[in-house]
Parts: sequence; structure tokens; C-alpha cells
Amino acid sequence: MKSKETDRSLEESFVSREEIFHGKIVHLVRDTVTLPNRNTATREVVLHLGAVVIVPLFSDGTVLMERQYRYAQGRVMYELPAGKLDSAGEDPQEAAIRELREETGLRAGKMTPLGYYIPSPAVLGERIGVFLAEELTEGEISLDPDEFLHTERRPLTELVEEILRGEIEDGKTQSALLRVYLLKERGLL
Amino acid sequence: MKSKETDRSLEESFVSREEIFHGKIVHLVRDTVTLPNRNTATREVVLHLGAVVIVPLFSDGTVLMERQYRYAQGRVMYELPAGKLDSAGEDPQEAAIRELREETGLRAGKMTPLGYYIPSPAVLGERIGVFLAEELTEGEISLDPDEFLHTERRPLTELVEEILRGEIEDGKTQSALLRVYLLKERGLL
Repeated sequence: MKSKETDRSLEESFVSREEIFHGKIVHLVRDTVTLPNRNTATREVVLHLGAVVIVPLFSDGTVLMERQYRYAQGRVMYELPAGKLDSAGEDPQEAAIRELREETGLRAGKMTPLGYYIPSPAVLGERIGVFLAEELTEGEISLDPDEFLHTERRPLTELVEEILRGEIEDGKTQSALLRVYLLKERGLL
Repeated sequence: MKSKETDRSLEESFVSREEIFHGKIVHLVRDTVTLPNRNTATREVVLHLGAVVIVPLFSDGTVLMERQYRYAQGRVMYELPAGKLDSAGEDPQEAAIRELREETGLRAGKMTPLGYYIPSPAVLGERIGVFLAEELTEGEISLDPDEFLHTERRPLTELVEEILRGEIEDGKTQSALLRVYLLKERGLL
């Protein structure tokens, strides 16, 4: 990508920060920045430790999916297992192993990192590490008492068809499943 | 998906709302809800009018991509054209036509809706309408004076390879390009 050389002309630089709100999940700040044309502007940013999403793929070609109520969307959504890092220092692969075990009881003999998925670059600082989990064995689920979700196993090929028809709307689920499907199809995984 | 019948057992219900912050972009509220086990909990939600992302696909198989500084991520990102709805009532397809024209100067003879992409269901109320723009003709760009971006045309097949190698990290770009690629490959678009 040769246009990278000109990226410097697009950059904004930090001037000052105002703390707006620090809640359970959302840490909101409003920064003042200098634009490339030397004007100033404000940027509202939700800071985030980072997260992981996991594609738990069984040897029979099925994937473990979750149904979970998402209050911000006002409905139950159909998603891959995912979760936040425990701390800024937590290794994403360790977090993927931990989240998969807690939410689904699954232990992965093989965990392959597939790079990152950035959910909303205009507002969120969040980056989500994407992992493929294979050589799965079942164990105990350990959900928080106030956490509710259902799980089911579905063939990857069926899930891909549903994504192409627009029936699965969660973005990280769309992207991670399509990537795993294409990488497997090409023998790259 | 037969498990839909049991979705009701996952639902949370609204009790009350506290307004936290209403900025230029972020409208943050903290709602109290009742959980399925009758406990109460709080939910921090960033409300959003909605947005659109567009895949501008030329007849030669190239796609128009943007490079734009994303302050929340602290770097220039490589993304498809996208933008917020002007109002809650704006038709997403009208918004896609408008955003494409403003950011890139392109006019689309054919605009095909491909369903929705939900960027971050745990925190954001945002839903992003996904559109394929074809039969493109070039015109005048009309960026805001404080808006800065570079555009370039790249073969869709090359972009798909970069996504599979983990080199393009924007989630909506990953999902929309992989969907268009697979739908075209199967003759469904």
C-alpha cells in the first residue's frame, strides 16, 4: 500500500483530555485535538482494554454458537463466544482460552490467532483478537450468576449461508466465520 | 433456529434511565434493568441513529477504499466509505447514496442492500446498513472542511487476500468485502 507514505498528512494530534464518565464497562473521555489543517476539534472516545472472539470449530465441521440478550440492541443476538480482557496486560490468547472455558465449558487443544477485528473505529478504542479454537473437549461451564446464554452447535457451512442471506447481524461473528470458512477452503488453516 | 422459542427466558426488561452524557457523537445513558433471575443490573449504552457502509464496486472488479485517521484507534485506518444517518428517519439507502457522493464523488446507478452489520452489541445501539454500489460514475467530492481522507481503487480479490492475512483490521470492511466476494463468486449478486 504505497499511499502509506502520505498517511502523516491525515494525522490528528492530542492537545488535552477531559474525563466524562468511568462506569462498569464504558470509560468515556473527550479529547481536544489538532487537525491536519491546524484547526482544533474534539473527539469523544470510549476507551477499552480490548477483547477476544473465538470460533470453536469441532472436527465434524460444526461451530459452537451462543444466543444472548443484548440490551443495547433490545433483543437476543446470535453470536460467537467472546469476552473482554481481564486487564490491559492479559495476553489475548490466554483470554480466549479463559473465555471459551467460562462461557461454554470447552477446552481447546489448539488455538490459532487470526489477527484483529476493530468494531467501531470512529468511537471505540476497542480491538478484538480473533481466534480459531480446535481439538475441543467438553467440560464444566462457569457463568457468572447474572450471566444468561444458550449455546448450540451448527455446521459452519450453514452459518456462512445465513450470513450471506443477511440473517446473522453480529459483525464479529460475520467476519470471523467468513474468514475461517475461506481460509479452510483454501487450505490455509 | 428452533432455540428461538426459548429466547424469552434470556430477556432483560427496562426499569429506569439515567442520562449520562450527550455529546457531538456519543449519547450515553445508564439504564437499570431486571434480569431473567429477577435481580437488577445496570446497562451502559451508547445510543446511535444508525449508519451505512458502502462497497463501491467498479465494473473492472476494483473497489474504492479510504484511508482516514481514526483518533479512537490512534492511527490511519483502511476502510470502505461509511457514514452516519443524518436523522433517525433517514432511509438507509438514501444515506448510502449521499455518503458515497459526499466522501468519494461517486454516483451509483445501482445500490443493493445486503442487510445489517452490528458493530458492538454489548455497548452500542448502532446498526450499520450494508450496501453494494455498482454502475458508478465519477463526480465532485464535497468533504467538510475539517474532514480529511485519501481514496484509492484496489482489486476486490487483492483486498480479500489482505483480509485473510489479517492486514485489514476494520470490522465492517472485513465483513462487507468478504460477503460481496462470496455472493459474487456464487452468482447471487
